[in-house]
Amino acid sequence: MSDLRERALELDSADQLAGVRGAFVLDTVSDHAADAAGVYLDGNSLGALPANVPGRVEDVVRRQWGELRIRSWTESGWWTAPERIGDLIAPLVGAAAGQIVVGDSTSVNVFKALVGAVRLAGAGRDEILVDAATFPTDGYIAASAARMTGCEVRAVQPGEVPDALNSRTAAVLLNHVDYRSGRLHDLPGLTAAVRAAGAVSVWDLCHSAGALPVGLDAHGVDLAVGCTYKFLNGGPGSPAYLYVAERHQAAFDSPLPGWNSHAEPFGMRPEYEAADGAVRGRVGTPDILSMLALEAALEVWQRPDVSVGGVRAKSLALTDFFLECVAAYVPEGRVEVVTPLAHAERGSQIALRCADAGEVMGRLIAAGVVGDFRAPDVLRFGFTPLYLGFADVERAARVLAEILR
Amino acid sequence: MSDLRERALELDSADQLAGVRGAFVLDTVSDHAADAAGVYLDGNSLGALPANVPGRVEDVVRRQWGELRIRSWTESGWWTAPERIGDLIAPLVGAAAGQIVVGDSTSVNVFKALVGAVRLAGAGRDEILVDAATFPTDGYIAASAARMTGCEVRAVQPGEVPDALNSRTAAVLLNHVDYRSGRLHDLPGLTAAVRAAGAVSVWDLCHSAGALPVGLDAHGVDLAVGCTYKFLNGGPGSPAYLYVAERHQAAFDSPLPGWNSHAEPFGMRPEYEAADGAVRGRVGTPDILSMLALEAALEVWQRPDVSVGGVRAKSLALTDFFLECVAAYVPEGRVEVVTPLAHAERGSQIALRCADAGEVMGRLIAAGVVGDFRAPDVLRFGFTPLYLGFADVERAARVLAEILR
Repeated sequence: MSDLRERALELDSADQLAGVRGAFVLDTVSDHAADAAGVYLDGNSLGALPANVPGRVEDVVRRQWGELRIRSWTESGWWTAPERIGDLIAPLVGAAAGQIVVGDSTSVNVFKALVGAVRLAGAGRDEILVDAATFPTDGYIAASAARMTGCEVRAVQPGEVPDALNSRTAAVLLNHVDYRSGRLHDLPGLTAAVRAAGAVSVWDLCHSAGALPVGLDAHGVDLAVGCTYKFLNGGPGSPAYLYVAERHQAAFDSPLPGWNSHAEPFGMRPEYEAADGAVRGRVGTPDILSMLALEAALEVWQRPDVSVGGVRAKSLALTDFFLECVAAYVPEGRVEVVTPLAHAERGSQIALRCADAGEVMGRLIAAGVVGDFRAPDVLRFGFTPLYLGFADVERAARVLAEILR
Repeated sequence: MSDLRERALELDSADQLAGVRGAFVLDTVSDHAADAAGVYLDGNSLGALPANVPGRVEDVVRRQWGELRIRSWTESGWWTAPERIGDLIAPLVGAAAGQIVVGDSTSVNVFKALVGAVRLAGAGRDEILVDAATFPTDGYIAASAARMTGCEVRAVQPGEVPDALNSRTAAVLLNHVDYRSGRLHDLPGLTAAVRAAGAVSVWDLCHSAGALPVGLDAHGVDLAVGCTYKFLNGGPGSPAYLYVAERHQAAFDSPLPGWNSHAEPFGMRPEYEAADGAVRGRVGTPDILSMLALEAALEVWQRPDVSVGGVRAKSLALTDFFLECVAAYVPEGRVEVVTPLAHAERGSQIALRCADAGEVMGRLIAAGVVGDFRAPDVLRFGFTPLYLGFADVERAARVLAEILR
C-alpha cells in the first residue's frame, strides 16, 4: 500500500466526523466495477441524500397531505415552516434566530435582497456593485434590479470593491465563495468597507453555508441569500433563504410583497401591510414537499458530534490532502490548481484547470468519481466533510491521475 | 331513504367519472364516527392526494436523488421538467404546447406577468387595472409591479373593466373565478375588450384550471398564471405556472431573468440573453420534489374517461345538486347563496354566507365535512369532479343542515 493510502486510513480513523457518514445514503461497493465504491465530489452542486429524508417525505405525502390534507397547514406546521426552517439554518451561518426565512429560489431572493438593499440605501445612491466573477444568475438579476430601481450595475472583482465604493454606491452583491475557483472572499473586511461607505452589503452564501463559518451577525452583514441543496443537502431545487439583519427588518421593503408576508395573511385585506420580522421576506405559498425534506436534512446539524467549526477543520484537511495526492499522482504540468492554497482564501472545493476538462470529467464520472465541469476548462471537486473520508479523497486523486496519464 | 339520497345514488351510478375516484386517496369509512366517510370539499384550496404520487415521490427521492444524484439533472429529466410539465397543463387550459412553464409561486408569476405585460404594452401606457375583489396577493404584487414600472393601479370590478379601459391602460389583471364567491368571469368577452383597447390581458386561473374549460389560445389571452395545488392536485405549495402566448414570447421581457431562462444556461456567460419560447419565463433552479409530484398528479388527465368537458359537466351537476340539497335541508333564511345560479357565471365552488360562518365551519370539519371559511362570513365548498360523488354532496348538505338547525 502506498504511503498516501496508509495516511488516508490513519486520517480516517482519527476523523471525529467519520461517524456522520452513516447519516447519508452513499454508494455501496457493489455499485461500481472499480476497486471500491464511487466517490461523490459534487456535493457543492447537489448534496447527497440524508438517510432520514425518504421516511420524512413519505410521512409528509401520505399522512400530512393524504390524510390530514388542508388541516396540515396548521396541524403539521406547514404555514410556519419558512421561518422555522430559517431558524435551523441561522446557527450555521452565524445568525441569531428570527432573521432568516426559507422559500423561493436563490435568484428570486437575490432580487428581493438587491431591491431591498437599494431602498435601504436611500435616495441619491444609484449604483450596484457586483462581483465580476459571480455565478451568472446574480449578475442577471442585479441588472434587472438596477433597471427597476433606476440604478446602474458595475462589475468589479471582490478585492477591488474597497476602491470602487463611493457616495453613489447603494448596494454591493458578493459571493462568499467563488463558484468556479473555490476562492473564499474576505467577508468581514469587505462588509466593513461597504458599511463604512454607507452602502448595503448583500452576500451570496451558496458555496459557503454548511461548509465553513460565515458569521453574518458578528461581521455586521446587512442582507444575505443562499441555496440549500449544496452543503446543506436539502435536495434538488430545495428552497433558498433570505437573511435580513434585524436592524433592517422594519425598513425592509420587498419588491415581492405576496400574501405570505402580510401582517395578517388570512385577513384577506386589499391593502398590503408588511409583517414584522423575517416573515417579511416571504412571498407566496411555500412548496412544502421540498421545504420539509430540507427540514429533515438539517437535523444532522443537531448531532453533538457535528459543528460548523469541526466541518471547516475537516474540509481544509480534506482539500489539503487532495492537493497533496494530486501533486503526488498527477503528471507535472497536466493540471493547474485554481483554488488558492491559503486556508483563509479557500472554500470547500478544489478547482483544477486542464485543457480537456470536459472529456476528463466524463471519464472520471464513468469511473465513479463524480465532480463537475465548468466551461471552458475547469474540473470542480466539492468536499462535503459530513460524508467524505480521506480514503475517498485519495482514491479520487488516483483515478484522476490514471485518466490524465 | 329520502328522495335526495335516492337521487344521489342514481346520479352516482350514471356518473362517467365515478371510476376516477379510485385514483385518489380519500377517507375510508372507518376514519369517522359519523354514518359514513368524510367529505372533502376543500379541493379548491388543496386537492386530495393522487394515489400514484407517493410511489413517484419515493422514486424521485430514493433513486433519482439518492442514487443518481447530480446525474438526474439530465438522466431523470429534471432540467427540462418546468417546460415538460407546462405542456401537460397546456391542454387543460386550452393552450397549444410550448407556451407554459412551471415554477415559482403564483405571486412570483403574477409579478413576471404584470411587469412583462406593462413592457409589452409599450411606452405611454401607465395604468394597471386589477380586479377589485381579487385574492389579495394579486393586488399586492400588482402594486409592486406598478411602482417598479412607473404605473398606477386602479381597482375595478371585472364587469366594469370595459368602461374603465382607456388609452393609458397597460395591463389588466383578472381572476377567471373569484376565490371567495365562486363567480366565473367572462374571459372571452373581457379579453376581447382588453385587446380592443390595446392593453395586455393577464388572467389568474387558480380557481378555474382543472375545473372548467379556459380556452387561452381560442380567446386570445395574452398572459396567464395559475397554481397547481387546487383542482390540479399537485400537492401543498406545488409550483405555479406562467402562460405567455406564442405571439408575445419574443418580446416578453421578464423582471426575473435568472440563469434558467438564459439561452445557454450552462455557458455561464456574464451577459444575459433570453431563451426562446416558454423557457423565458423560468428563473432559478426548480424545486424538483414538488415539481415531479405535480407531474405524477397530472397523469389522471391522460385517462380516456377524463376530459375537461366531462369534468365541467359533472362540476355543474354537483354544484346544482348541492344547491338543491341545501334548499331542501337548510332552514329558510339561515344561509345566503353567494355563488351565481347561472351556469355561465359559476366556477366549481359554492359559497354560502351566514353570520356565524367561522363557527359553523369548525363544527362541519369536526363532523368530517371539510370546506373552508373566508372572513368575515363565507362558507366555501369546493367540488372536484374527479373524486367527489353525488352521495358525498348530499351528505355534506345534510350535515350542514343539522349544524345550522
